Formats: sequence, C-alpha cells, structure tokens
Amino acid sequence: MERFGFGSDVALTPREALLDGVTVAPLSRSILDGSPCQAAIVRVAPGGRIARHPASCPQVLAVLEGSGEVSGSSGIDEPIGPGEAVFWAEGEEHETTSAAGLTALIVEGDGLAPFRRPA
Amino acid sequence: MERFGFGSDVALTPREALLDGVTVAPLSRSILDGSPCQAAIVRVAPGGRIARHPASCPQVLAVLEGSGEVSGSSGIDEPIGPGEAVFWAEGEEHETTSAAGLTALIVEGDGLAPFRRPA
Repeated sequence: MERFGFGSDVALTPREALLDGVTVAPLSRSILDGSPCQAAIVRVAPGGRIARHPASCPQVLAVLEGSGEVSGSSGIDEPIGPGEAVFWAEGEEHETTSAAGLTALIVEGDGLAPFRRPA
Repeated sequence: MERFGFGSDVALTPREALLDGVTVAPLSRSILDGSPCQAAIVRVAPGGRIARHPASCPQVLAVLEGSGEVSGSSGIDEPIGPGEAVFWAEGEEHETTSAAGLTALIVEGDGLAPFRRPA
C-alpha cells in the first residue's frame, strides 16, 4: 500500500495554453508515462477554463464540488454541478468553463466507455 | 457528450459478501463488461466496510469525504481522510472500513500505476 495526497496543496499547475486557472492533482501515472489510463483531480479557479480541444482518448469528467459549464461536439454550453458527470468520446471537441470554480475528477483511457444502467 | 449522474440517489447496492453498507455509483463501464479500466464513486455507510480481499488489478482509492481506515498487505489499519489516497498493487490483500462513513473514488485497471512526483 502506497499513500499519497491529492489536496490542493500538492496539486500541479501545468503550463499548457489550453489551461487557464487550472491545477491538477494526479491520482495515477500519466498516459504519457505509459499508463493505460489516468485519473486526476482537476480544480478550475473561478473564471478559469479547460479550453476547447479534441479529447485525445475517451474521457469522463465528474464534478465533485462547485459548478461550471461543459460542452461537447455541439458547442452548446450546459450547466453542470456536483454529482453530475459527462463522457466525451475520443476526438470529440469539448470545453469546460467555470464562473464560480469547480473541482472535478477526470478519468481517461483508450477503450474507456460510459456506464449504462442495465435495462 | 453523454451526461449521467453519480449521486447517492442513483448508486447501486451490489450484493457481494465483501461489501457491508457500501453503495457504488459507476463512472465508467465495468472491467467485467470489457472496459480496460473502471472508475466509481463508492460510499461506505457508518460502520460499513469493504472486507479484506486481494486486489484483482492495480487500484487507487481516493477519499473525497468522511474518514475511515485502510490497510494493505501488512494488515495494519491506517486512518485516511479527504485529500488522501492509497494505491494497492495487483493481488495485494487490502481492506477499507469506516466508523463515520466515507465517500471515495476507486479507479482500477491492468497496468494502472501510482503517480510519483518528479524528483
């Protein structure tokens, strides 16, 4: 058993043009470092955004705290809050913005598929 | 973009002997249904537990709310709370208990590896 933290005190601030007011606390090794999937807690500061870009692989974003707006290929912003999640397909253009700030979990990986409740 | 909820109102209550007072809100398709990795929000009621068993694949548990105790192969219980996470290796015996109740994210998948901060 290995222990680690994911609080805002240990979060990283990636210098990426797509990220505005965003910190990332990884929960796993990165896909870029050979992991088949990756998970992280992402915090968007008030007024921040993860700017529009295509998903490099299938992705789930699950809002834990705060609120914001998400859009997929339609480009239409939809409000999202705690307990709500979205799935974006590989290659899908998407964006996340937040006027009030939000904390979300992002899980990504080749072959990741959305949950569907049994009929 | 597909939307779905993961609040306690939509969580499932798996009938598994290992689970006592545990509900699961999936964030992805299950490994059992062909997904290479899976993520879920797991809620342990006060006094509940995920009883000791070997990890079927590498796993991260990240506590979002509440508190509890976790153990790995040593069998020694360690307190855990919000912002703290553990990684269990494939096959590692582990347990999660909670006197007060807790909400955690669990991510599992073959090849999932713990994050290590760059030196």
